[in-house]
Amino acid sequence: MNGNELQKKRQAYRPVLPEILGDLHGIAWSKSQSGMSGDKMKGMFPLTGGGPLLTGQKGGNRSGKPLQIGVVLSGGQAAGGHNVITGLFDALKQLHPQSRVFGFLDGPGGIVSGKYKELTAEFIAPYRNMGGFDMIGSGRTKIETDEQLSASLATVQKMKLDGLVVIGGDDSNTNAAILAEYFLKCGSSTKVIGVPKTIDGDLKNAYVATSFGFDTACKTYSEMIGNIARDAASAKKYYHFIKLMGRSASHIALECALKTQPNLTLIGEEVAAEKKTLAQITSEIADLITKRAEKGKHYGVILIPEGLIEFIPEIGALIKELNQILANHPSADVAALLTSHSKECFASLPERIREQLLQGRDPHGNVQVSLIETERLLMETVSRELEKRQIKFSLLQHFFGYEGRAGYPSNFDCNYCYALGHAAALLIDEGATGYMCAISGLARPPAEWGIGGVPLTSLMHIEIRKGKEKPVIEKALVDLKGPAFSRFRQHRERWMSDDMYSFPGPIQFFGDPALTDSVPITIYLESHGR
Amino acid sequence: MNGNELQKKRQAYRPVLPEILGDLHGIAWSKSQSGMSGDKMKGMFPLTGGGPLLTGQKGGNRSGKPLQIGVVLSGGQAAGGHNVITGLFDALKQLHPQSRVFGFLDGPGGIVSGKYKELTAEFIAPYRNMGGFDMIGSGRTKIETDEQLSASLATVQKMKLDGLVVIGGDDSNTNAAILAEYFLKCGSSTKVIGVPKTIDGDLKNAYVATSFGFDTACKTYSEMIGNIARDAASAKKYYHFIKLMGRSASHIALECALKTQPNLTLIGEEVAAEKKTLAQITSEIADLITKRAEKGKHYGVILIPEGLIEFIPEIGALIKELNQILANHPSADVAALLTSHSKECFASLPERIREQLLQGRDPHGNVQVSLIETERLLMETVSRELEKRQIKFSLLQHFFGYEGRAGYPSNFDCNYCYALGHAAALLIDEGATGYMCAISGLARPPAEWGIGGVPLTSLMHIEIRKGKEKPVIEKALVDLKGPAFSRFRQHRERWMSDDMYSFPGPIQFFGDPALTDSVPITIYLESHGR
Repeated sequence: MNGNELQKKRQAYRPVLPEILGDLHGIAWSKSQSGMSGDKMKGMFPLTGGGPLLTGQKGGNRSGKPLQIGVVLSGGQAAGGHNVITGLFDALKQLHPQSRVFGFLDGPGGIVSGKYKELTAEFIAPYRNMGGFDMIGSGRTKIETDEQLSASLATVQKMKLDGLVVIGGDDSNTNAAILAEYFLKCGSSTKVIGVPKTIDGDLKNAYVATSFGFDTACKTYSEMIGNIARDAASAKKYYHFIKLMGRSASHIALECALKTQPNLTLIGEEVAAEKKTLAQITSEIADLITKRAEKGKHYGVILIPEGLIEFIPEIGALIKELNQILANHPSADVAALLTSHSKECFASLPERIREQLLQGRDPHGNVQVSLIETERLLMETVSRELEKRQIKFSLLQHFFGYEGRAGYPSNFDCNYCYALGHAAALLIDEGATGYMCAISGLARPPAEWGIGGVPLTSLMHIEIRKGKEKPVIEKALVDLKGPAFSRFRQHRERWMSDDMYSFPGPIQFFGDPALTDSVPITIYLESHGR
Repeated sequence: MNGNELQKKRQAYRPVLPEILGDLHGIAWSKSQSGMSGDKMKGMFPLTGGGPLLTGQKGGNRSGKPLQIGVVLSGGQAAGGHNVITGLFDALKQLHPQSRVFGFLDGPGGIVSGKYKELTAEFIAPYRNMGGFDMIGSGRTKIETDEQLSASLATVQKMKLDGLVVIGGDDSNTNAAILAEYFLKCGSSTKVIGVPKTIDGDLKNAYVATSFGFDTACKTYSEMIGNIARDAASAKKYYHFIKLMGRSASHIALECALKTQPNLTLIGEEVAAEKKTLAQITSEIADLITKRAEKGKHYGVILIPEGLIEFIPEIGALIKELNQILANHPSADVAALLTSHSKECFASLPERIREQLLQGRDPHGNVQVSLIETERLLMETVSRELEKRQIKFSLLQHFFGYEGRAGYPSNFDCNYCYALGHAAALLIDEGATGYMCAISGLARPPAEWGIGGVPLTSLMHIEIRKGKEKPVIEKALVDLKGPAFSRFRQHRERWMSDDMYSFPGPIQFFGDPALTDSVPITIYLESHGR
């Protein structure tokens, strides 16, 4: 008996490499203008702003010098992080056997404090194709203050690092851009490369079709949603309100909706665009339940994105006010300082939600949206409405989040991350700094993927954080005019009344590639819709 | 693009049949005394009590007459139910092509009301190897009153049924025994056969190693627990309190513990045996968290069986009293009628738990244990204790239940259920009634499995239900002296301090049989420990 059969089999899996990565010494980088906003950032990033796009091509003749590279995992877990590191390691060793890789421990804090460990072939072997970030840990420290910046510089100089690879989400990649500029300004030769990580899928742009971890998370959630839908259709007595992780954008909800075809899926971006109030959303759900009850159906599945609450106009405005008040008057009686409109909105919310709005702060000092039980808020308002209508219904509440962050990466995420690690190694070898790795053609088979680098500054815009202007990488929201949302909009009417649930089942690793190597539906549609 | 690749592939899966089922016409049944309590039930079951054990053997020469069989799904979903029906169908058609199968709709209520549909080869095809009970639906009606019994008799007589197959848990199989006796008493020739279904795994005995659905449920929960454990070990900041479905016994918690090796798993039966109070359990968890904090570990995974609360002596006593009071004085001020000891216990519980104790009634008129947020109760008591000790800790709460009932059945459950369906067909063909199908040798490869029939009355004992003596099938609790619990007890000390999490990952259907066809660890140990 051994419960770890899958672990052994996955450790032995060899990611499929893009054909272009077959000979790392034979790769050349072509330059082109990105046409994005890089130039606007020239003021804030005089040394790294406005660089060219880089595209890997065959035909180079890289000498391959020994490189010393540090790597750090930043923020929440996303499946495939370990493969970025093994891909980086394998590529560097292939470029030059004397190259060395160091892992900073427990996130960016490890760079500031100089805590790291050398990653050897033996040490990384058990983490190949494994989920989680436990190889070197992760953390949420932001390197922002002058002290943190100079401590980080001291660390990379002491370690004689040629490069630093930051694996993280939008904030961590923003941080990577700042570090790249700072290191250059201080005369350091340490290059900084960012890798797009986040299950939320909101770190994407014209060159990066998706962040890694999104595929595995959506597949894991969809397995559970499908199971619950089948249970609902069998038991015929419960409405399942399922909240899905995803801090801001509703990419996860959209992808899971396309995979499982539930009766209703709320998309935060649509709620915002159509300025739907809480009362309207409540009616919409209550109408669905009423109509299904008229057909004798007292069950259903409703998907609710975690970040929804911020997109509801009156609650979004309330949260913004709360953030402002809490930034400037942290100990004040908050409710007294609200505008009359927000005060009214605040008072109308159930007590538990009011508490949750005031309870926690995220690292930016903002209301911690993930603590708010949005699904419970809707359950309460919908229950009240249906009581008025005298429609009987029973409901159950679910939240899928942590289950999808650290599972075994899908073949897609294994391959994607392994390629990202290779691209990071090659970009550093090329001397690029302030770049994000980009793998192109993700909707095609891995062998056909291309590699590239996008200037981080070209992905940035200005946002207000803690009341101050900051350059940050823009979060990509669901494109309401895009092909993925269109597909959803086209079909959702039928999914409401008819039960057209799809049951994706557990992620499969072995067998027919049509089954094991599938790409997120949104990514497939977006790349083919272009 | 098609999200249903797995569905198509699973529909095409051909369950592995026990070798003995290769020629259905060549099977003979040998009789032996079961040595169990069947005789004690002779008074209540004069016609069906005390029958012999039946064991399928090679060497028969069945004529194979056309049979008309009704089948019903009863109670909560368990993966594999559809395969019992397809197995029954295929076996009957093989015994005689003119045999017919009818599915009663939405549970035993369909027998009472005579609602059914004929199951044809075309109709059942899409449900092969699929999860859920949506082929014909399920329900929780109990056929108990004289009116229900005579209506059921009228239905099976009108339909000229040779047999009725009841797929259900302990209560439904008890019901099957009552129906078998009643039909015989009334001179009906309709045989009644029970099939052991329940994810809880508490329907087992010397002849039935496990109920179907247990394997798939435990594998599904263990996938999620493993994912969360990896997330915990990566993020290093949360304790995850995971409640697992399982109404009474802690089989699911034990199986998941053996699969995932979390830091702590509470086993209801052990709590009861050692008469652990809520305060003691709270201390135990707080001690674990304190010790890990001393090592710098502020994270962990704790499994809590849903049924735990009833096993805690003072709360169990309270619930018993509540059940008695509610049966006899449904509208009284309950708290006033409690004994002083239970009154004290009730008052000490958080308000929300008190509410949940009074809120719902199950179909037996008892406190609805599944509504009680046991994990939240422990979270509150543990948080209070750790506050006293000034140990900082953050926790997250999960409940895995509905996710595991209707997913794609594992290969084990597919094969097991398909064989159960065959056994049911053969037992009816033999003229047996009041029997439960039994597949033997489940820890060996499916080809080596044997088939049998156990008299339902031999599995029964007397319980008090709504204040009255009733013959019911005994729930099998975790055997604290058995090999599965021993294995757990032997290792758990290390799992507490060291992180020895195992990550079972998603259920695999294709590839190496060592991976795809594994048996529950508890079942493996129990059958090899014997």
